Amino acid sequence: MEQRISLITLGVADLEASRSFYERLGWRRSVEKAEGVAFYQAGIVLALYPRQSLSEDLGMALSGAANAPLTLALNVRSRIEVDRVLEEAVAAGARLLKRAADAPWGGYVGYFADPDGFAWEVAWNPHFPLDAQGRIQLPE
Amino acid sequence: MEQRISLITLGVADLEASRSFYERLGWRRSVEKAEGVAFYQAGIVLALYPRQSLSEDLGMALSGAANAPLTLALNVRSRIEVDRVLEEAVAAGARLLKRAADAPWGGYVGYFADPDGFAWEVAWNPHFPLDAQGRIQLPE
Repeated sequence: MEQRISLITLGVADLEASRSFYERLGWRRSVEKAEGVAFYQAGIVLALYPRQSLSEDLGMALSGAANAPLTLALNVRSRIEVDRVLEEAVAAGARLLKRAADAPWGGYVGYFADPDGFAWEVAWNPHFPLDAQGRIQLPE
Repeated sequence: MEQRISLITLGVADLEASRSFYERLGWRRSVEKAEGVAFYQAGIVLALYPRQSLSEDLGMALSGAANAPLTLALNVRSRIEVDRVLEEAVAAGARLLKRAADAPWGGYVGYFADPDGFAWEVAWNPHFPLDAQGRIQLPE
């Protein structure tokens, strides 16, 4: 299996509310004709999709996102950018989960939750430089 | 906030078991000196991290992954590759969640669960072509 993630689908309670939130953050939807789902080019693709639809596709019941054991992360180029992104997210309607603080591994990190409770980490990590497109290129 | 996902962290119950699973799939770890976490360059970065550690970082309790309302996806170039990846995953210890089948939107899709229950979609989607690096380039 190739070492690659192509897309993440978040099962959301209210597609319109989630879409509005990400668009208030400045994200622009692609494939606008797609119905019942919203796709964003975000390095990989982020898809927002009603939880009920995802549950039907998988053939299993799904819980809500609050307390789901994962985080999505945006890595930025400076401490000040971490603070700025967290402020932007809160202004767009996010809930601040944890104010930015120094991390024991030498970075600076804070967390917010999107409308469903999906946790986003906003991080400056001096050990993980970003390339010109903003992608992390892991050291060996 | 830039329209970009840098990294996904999965909070796993048993880091060694999860690491072994992804490595049986053929994935190779980067930053091998990092302790208590495993990083994989997967377009974006996938981080496997003990759920307990993630819970401490976030300052909140986290549930298990089973029934978490999201999927990670690997998009491949043909139907036959979907079948092959699902077989590889099961051979590596994944649980088949849904055998591959035609999707109403014209693709071919199956699902497996990793050791924690994180759901992976394996998809051939003729509407989302892959570039030379295997990345989805969304149409406008």
